[in-house]
Amino acid sequence: MRAEILCVGTELLLGDIVNTNAAYIAKELAAIGVNVYHQAVVGDNAQRLREQLERSFSQCDLVVLTGGLGPTYDDLTKETVAELFGREMEFNQEAYDGILRRFLHSDRQMTENNRKQAYLPVGAVPLQNQNGTAPGLILEDEREHRTAVLLPGPPREMEPMFSNQVVPYLKEKTHSTLVSHSIHIFGLGESYVESCLHDFMEESRNPTLAPYAKEGEVLLRVTASAGSREEADRMMEPVIERVKELFGDNVYGVDIGSLQAALVAELQKKGLKAATAESCTGGLVSKRITEVAGASQVFDCGICSYANQIKERVLGVSHETLEALGAVSRETAAQMAAGVRKLAQADIGVSTTGIAGPDGGTDEKPVGLVYVGVDSENYSTVLECRLSRGYRDERELIRYLASSHALRLALTAARKA
Amino acid sequence: MRAEILCVGTELLLGDIVNTNAAYIAKELAAIGVNVYHQAVVGDNAQRLREQLERSFSQCDLVVLTGGLGPTYDDLTKETVAELFGREMEFNQEAYDGILRRFLHSDRQMTENNRKQAYLPVGAVPLQNQNGTAPGLILEDEREHRTAVLLPGPPREMEPMFSNQVVPYLKEKTHSTLVSHSIHIFGLGESYVESCLHDFMEESRNPTLAPYAKEGEVLLRVTASAGSREEADRMMEPVIERVKELFGDNVYGVDIGSLQAALVAELQKKGLKAATAESCTGGLVSKRITEVAGASQVFDCGICSYANQIKERVLGVSHETLEALGAVSRETAAQMAAGVRKLAQADIGVSTTGIAGPDGGTDEKPVGLVYVGVDSENYSTVLECRLSRGYRDERELIRYLASSHALRLALTAARKA
Repeated sequence: MRAEILCVGTELLLGDIVNTNAAYIAKELAAIGVNVYHQAVVGDNAQRLREQLERSFSQCDLVVLTGGLGPTYDDLTKETVAELFGREMEFNQEAYDGILRRFLHSDRQMTENNRKQAYLPVGAVPLQNQNGTAPGLILEDEREHRTAVLLPGPPREMEPMFSNQVVPYLKEKTHSTLVSHSIHIFGLGESYVESCLHDFMEESRNPTLAPYAKEGEVLLRVTASAGSREEADRMMEPVIERVKELFGDNVYGVDIGSLQAALVAELQKKGLKAATAESCTGGLVSKRITEVAGASQVFDCGICSYANQIKERVLGVSHETLEALGAVSRETAAQMAAGVRKLAQADIGVSTTGIAGPDGGTDEKPVGLVYVGVDSENYSTVLECRLSRGYRDERELIRYLASSHALRLALTAARKA
Repeated sequence: MRAEILCVGTELLLGDIVNTNAAYIAKELAAIGVNVYHQAVVGDNAQRLREQLERSFSQCDLVVLTGGLGPTYDDLTKETVAELFGREMEFNQEAYDGILRRFLHSDRQMTENNRKQAYLPVGAVPLQNQNGTAPGLILEDEREHRTAVLLPGPPREMEPMFSNQVVPYLKEKTHSTLVSHSIHIFGLGESYVESCLHDFMEESRNPTLAPYAKEGEVLLRVTASAGSREEADRMMEPVIERVKELFGDNVYGVDIGSLQAALVAELQKKGLKAATAESCTGGLVSKRITEVAGASQVFDCGICSYANQIKERVLGVSHETLEALGAVSRETAAQMAAGVRKLAQADIGVSTTGIAGPDGGTDEKPVGLVYVGVDSENYSTVLECRLSRGYRDERELIRYLASSHALRLALTAARKA
């Protein structure tokens, strides 16, 4: 089945809102093995919608539409699709009952416009809306082998309707099982990862392997199509093993989500606690750890010591070290990590100190120089990182990369514990 | 000029990332008076890209493309556009110098792949990439009246390239002097702001007023078109004054960028220091303050006290308060703010404690309940916030909104000091 996603709405076209619907639907379709071929956005304009629909159905057999199902005069999606499929509109009792139920639960008055929402093309399967008044619908044209799925625009209404009603409907039609795994790699560039895997990526059609770069990390997605989940997993296993062999410790997990999620999971597994002492990252390391629900089991304390006196007074970094070597030094990073570990009575202390820029750099200690430290019973070290790429406005990037190195060091310490 | 936005990338098509580029470009084009007619997304596939480009140019004279400019074999945008325009690819020294500069500043090795990035279609105007290796380009075909703008996919690279290089280029083509100001509003909903300004927005064509909602804030963009910058500013002044009158203290600044930038600027002006004590926000408040370059002049210390014992031991919150009222309470927030102010010897202490979810909520203290406190000589208070909207996965939203309330309270305290 080849699908297109067609989002209707002038507010999307003009950029007043970001189109999260297309990404949501595409991901859900990929998960059930439906190939998305194309995405498009058109404004609230019946003629252009009609033209786009004709193009879409010339290439695809499934078009998923969002938006334009509201009660007002510029909501035209249903009528346009009905016309293209050669269907009349008719009053649908099931859809009307659903709308009535929405109003029963609210203090708002139902209007004549809302009654209009209960008119659907002849033969349509209505989709109930748990979070709004506009019903969705599925319309099939078996002779021409084309299916239109119409969904409301607001994500809160669209998402549950799609996953609870449309996905089961499509699954029954397709009978295929597509399974994906994500391999998370830190510390290698995308071009390097790709050059190592180039031949495999070119040759292999099932499973497939695709790299995605995001700030300092590479995510490799392996996808297999098979008769069952078990068979798909069997096909992917040697590929995942091969990637792990190739990239060794740089692979920090499979299907783990993020460095912080991997760290929290490892700490939970081992019953350990970590603590953070941050200078240049300013709280970003603790922010990322506490992003993970359940972090409170493994994380009690983070200190953002942005000034030397706080490094001394709260973390116990020695005055002499700060005087002789400066705040941005290997020794300060080591003492910060040890200091916060002691203060928090944690198993692992992790620290960052460096120059995020744009000012404050010198020849000896340029912008982007960051020391990342870790202190624990079996593993204590300081890493010197040079994180500037010479970009403009790279302060946030340097801070983010430094926080990733800190999370990675803490993860290594947790694994060695 | 009629424009289409065409985003290239399998990761967009499959929903692995949300397409923020289309919204960004659409909004920037609208601001300089260019109408966006259509948006589309295609995968990394030369043939489908070619087909879409032909359709796009049959309806529009400007196509803005993002993605597919990377160094790898599946990055095909440049070649496909060149073919459509009937141009050869040639080595471009200016583009190559830009790429070289990127590598000079980093410890990464340049590869043969990167050299490929310096090949542009004959006659293209190269666009420098301040934040990555892939140069962008503008290609005009004067005979056929069509222009293609090619931009890299990562927003960090695309956005400054578009606003600093493409916008001036298009402005010159369209001959307008457009000046904009941004009015920053916190604490009012977008629909409320819009309903207050509805008549003005409907009637006024120059200057125009457009609201943009983003996580708890509303940004009002005022734009005037005039013969000179001074004249445009004169036209906008009464509008800005009117908005300030209407929304009073909820307007926290004009052209100030963000709550954290407004706070750091106010603290610098007054020679004050702030300190943070965070529980549910986990370091996000200090992370946002230290995002602002120069924050080290006004911020020494942030404590993330995620466990009760750290609230007691480091911040001096009383054991009795924690026992009797719990960590999520007005009293705990007040003591955290006072405690960190004392510990850091700061002028202003600010605190957060609450339930970010998804677990940990009760009937009495539901997910989304957050107390935000501030302590300073002239202004000390605690705000009770209910930040849940009942959405799925709203942990990060609750944390972000709580951090915004904290920054806002600190800003109020700094203004009263």
